Amino acid sequence: MRAVVWDGADARVVERAPPEPTVHTAVVGVRLAGICSTDLQLLKGYMAFRGILGHEFVGIVEEGPPEWRGRRVVGEINFACGRCPTCVQGLGRHCPNRRVMGILNADGAFAEQVAVPIANLHLVPDGVPDETAVFTEPLAAAFEILDQVDVQPGTRCVVLGDGKLGLLVAQVLHVAGARVIVVGKHDDKLAIARRWGVEAVGLAQWTGAAADLVVEATGSAKGFAAAVAMTRPRGTLVLKSTVAEAAPLNLAPLVINEVTVVGSRCGRFAPALHALEAARVDVRPLVSRRFPLRDAVAALQIAGAPGVLKVLLEP
Amino acid sequence: MRAVVWDGADARVVERAPPEPTVHTAVVGVRLAGICSTDLQLLKGYMAFRGILGHEFVGIVEEGPPEWRGRRVVGEINFACGRCPTCVQGLGRHCPNRRVMGILNADGAFAEQVAVPIANLHLVPDGVPDETAVFTEPLAAAFEILDQVDVQPGTRCVVLGDGKLGLLVAQVLHVAGARVIVVGKHDDKLAIARRWGVEAVGLAQWTGAAADLVVEATGSAKGFAAAVAMTRPRGTLVLKSTVAEAAPLNLAPLVINEVTVVGSRCGRFAPALHALEAARVDVRPLVSRRFPLRDAVAALQIAGAPGVLKVLLEP
Repeated sequence: MRAVVWDGADARVVERAPPEPTVHTAVVGVRLAGICSTDLQLLKGYMAFRGILGHEFVGIVEEGPPEWRGRRVVGEINFACGRCPTCVQGLGRHCPNRRVMGILNADGAFAEQVAVPIANLHLVPDGVPDETAVFTEPLAAAFEILDQVDVQPGTRCVVLGDGKLGLLVAQVLHVAGARVIVVGKHDDKLAIARRWGVEAVGLAQWTGAAADLVVEATGSAKGFAAAVAMTRPRGTLVLKSTVAEAAPLNLAPLVINEVTVVGSRCGRFAPALHALEAARVDVRPLVSRRFPLRDAVAALQIAGAPGVLKVLLEP
Repeated sequence: MRAVVWDGADARVVERAPPEPTVHTAVVGVRLAGICSTDLQLLKGYMAFRGILGHEFVGIVEEGPPEWRGRRVVGEINFACGRCPTCVQGLGRHCPNRRVMGILNADGAFAEQVAVPIANLHLVPDGVPDETAVFTEPLAAAFEILDQVDVQPGTRCVVLGDGKLGLLVAQVLHVAGARVIVVGKHDDKLAIARRWGVEAVGLAQWTGAAADLVVEATGSAKGFAAAVAMTRPRGTLVLKSTVAEAAPLNLAPLVINEVTVVGSRCGRFAPALHALEAARVDVRPLVSRRFPLRDAVAALQIAGAPGVLKVLLEP
C-alpha cells in the first residue's frame, strides 16, 4: 500500500506492506485524512516519532469482526492497554503503556490502510459526509475543554490563535453559550469566526478586559506569555498547543494572579460526532486544500504555510 | 524609627520617619518580623520593589481606632481598594489597585513601626506566642492550597522543596489527612518533616509513583520540570515559588498529561490563626536564627544561606 513515512529526516510517500488485522484490531481503508499541526511538530522532532504519519481520518472497515466490516468509521487515536490502573480508572487516553496513532509507536492514517483497535472505532452517522467526519478527532479535542473546565453561559472566553484548532475551540465554546473572542493574526481566518457569530479581533487590536477563560491555541511556544496576560486573576488558562521546543517562561504571574492552567489534549469522540450529526458545529470553512495521498509531501509543506487551514489527503 | 530599606542596589538599616495613621490605617509597633524567600527574591529584582522590606510580622497597635489600640495583631499583606469589581467579588487579594506590604508600593514590617489598613488586622489569640504568630502569613499561604484544591484523606501528595514554605505546606496537607512525602535536599530539614510524622526523602532517593497533587515549593525556576514529572496524568501541580527570572520550560508534558497547574499565593489568615491556636500545626522547629533589627543586613545574608530556615528580626 501507499503510505507517508517519516524517518526522522524526511517525509516520503513509499510502498509499505498493509497492516494485518489481529484479534483486537481492525484494518480500515482510509477515505480521507487530515493534516494536523501536531503532524508538523512531529517533523520538527516532537515525540521523536518514526513511522507512518497521520491520526485524523475517516474510512471503511475492510478487515475485522463481521459486525464492523463495511462500516464507515472514525477512530480514537490513543491505543490503551486496558489493563493498567490508569485504564481501570477510565483514563485510557492517559494509559502509560499506550501507543498513539501516527504519534507514538503506532503507524498512522496517511496511508491506504490503517490498523485501529476495535475498541477505538466509532460509527459515523449516515448524514455526516467524509469531509466533515474527518474533523471528529480535532473537534473532540476542542470538546475536551468542556469536560475539564466549567463553562457557563456568559463565561468570558478568549481563544488565542485563529488556526484550525483555535477556530474549532471558539465554535465549541460559542455553542456552549460562552462569550467568545478569537484573537488572531489572519483576517481571513478571523472572518470565518465572525461568520459563525463569534467575535474576532487582530492581536494588535486586542484591548479587552482579562477573561475568565483563555485558550492558548497558537501552536507556538510564544503564545503562553500573552495568554497568561489575558487571563483574569483566579481565571483559567487552557493549554492546547503541543510544541517541540522549550521557551523561556516566567511563571511568577501564574502564582501572583493564582491562575489555573489546564493542559488539554484528546477528547471523547461521542460529543464531537453528535455535534457534527446535529450540524451544531460547522467545519467546512476550515478546509483549505485537498490532495491525493501521492502528493502528501507537497501537502505537508502547504499545510505549514501561513494562512493555510486544514489540508486533506485522499488515498 | 529604624527600618530596613531596599533601594534597588543595597538593603540598609536607616532612620526613617515613622508612619502616620489615617482614617483607614493603624500604626503597629512591630515585635517580631520574619524573613521570607520573597524578600530574598526582591533583592534580586523581583517586583522592582523599593522601600521598607518585610511582610511577615506580629506587633501591637500603637495608633488607630480605640478598639484596636494596645491589641496584639498580625496583618494581611494585600492592601485592596475595596471598591473595584474584583474587590466587590470578594477577591481583594487580587485587587488590581492593591498595594502589598513590603512588596508593591507599600512600606513593610522590617521596621519599628508599620502602617496597616484596619481591615487587614487580625487579633492574635492569647495562647499564641509572638514567635509562633509571626508565621501566620506564610502559614495562611500554605492553607490557601486547601481553599483552591480538593484535598481528600488519602490524596497522594508530594511537596517538592524542604524550605520554610515547603515544610509548612507539608504539615498543612498532612493535618488535612493527605498522604504526604516531602522531597528535598537537606537532611536536617527533612528530619523536621519526619518529626511531624510526614514521610521525607532526598531528591536523589525519590523513586515514587507520580502523585495526585504536587506542590512546587523549591523557590527555584528549576523546580518546575521536576514537579511536572512527579504529577500523575490529570493530576494537579500547585505552584508556590515566585521567582524573578524566566527559565526555559517545555509545557508539552502539561498538555500531554492534561495536568492542572494552580498558581497559589496568599491565603486567608483565619485558618492559620485557628491552627496555631489549636496547636494543630507546629512552627517552632522552623526558626533558625533571631537577630536584632539593627543587624538586618547580616540577617538577610544568613537567611539566604543553604540550610537556613526562618530568620526572625526583633526591632
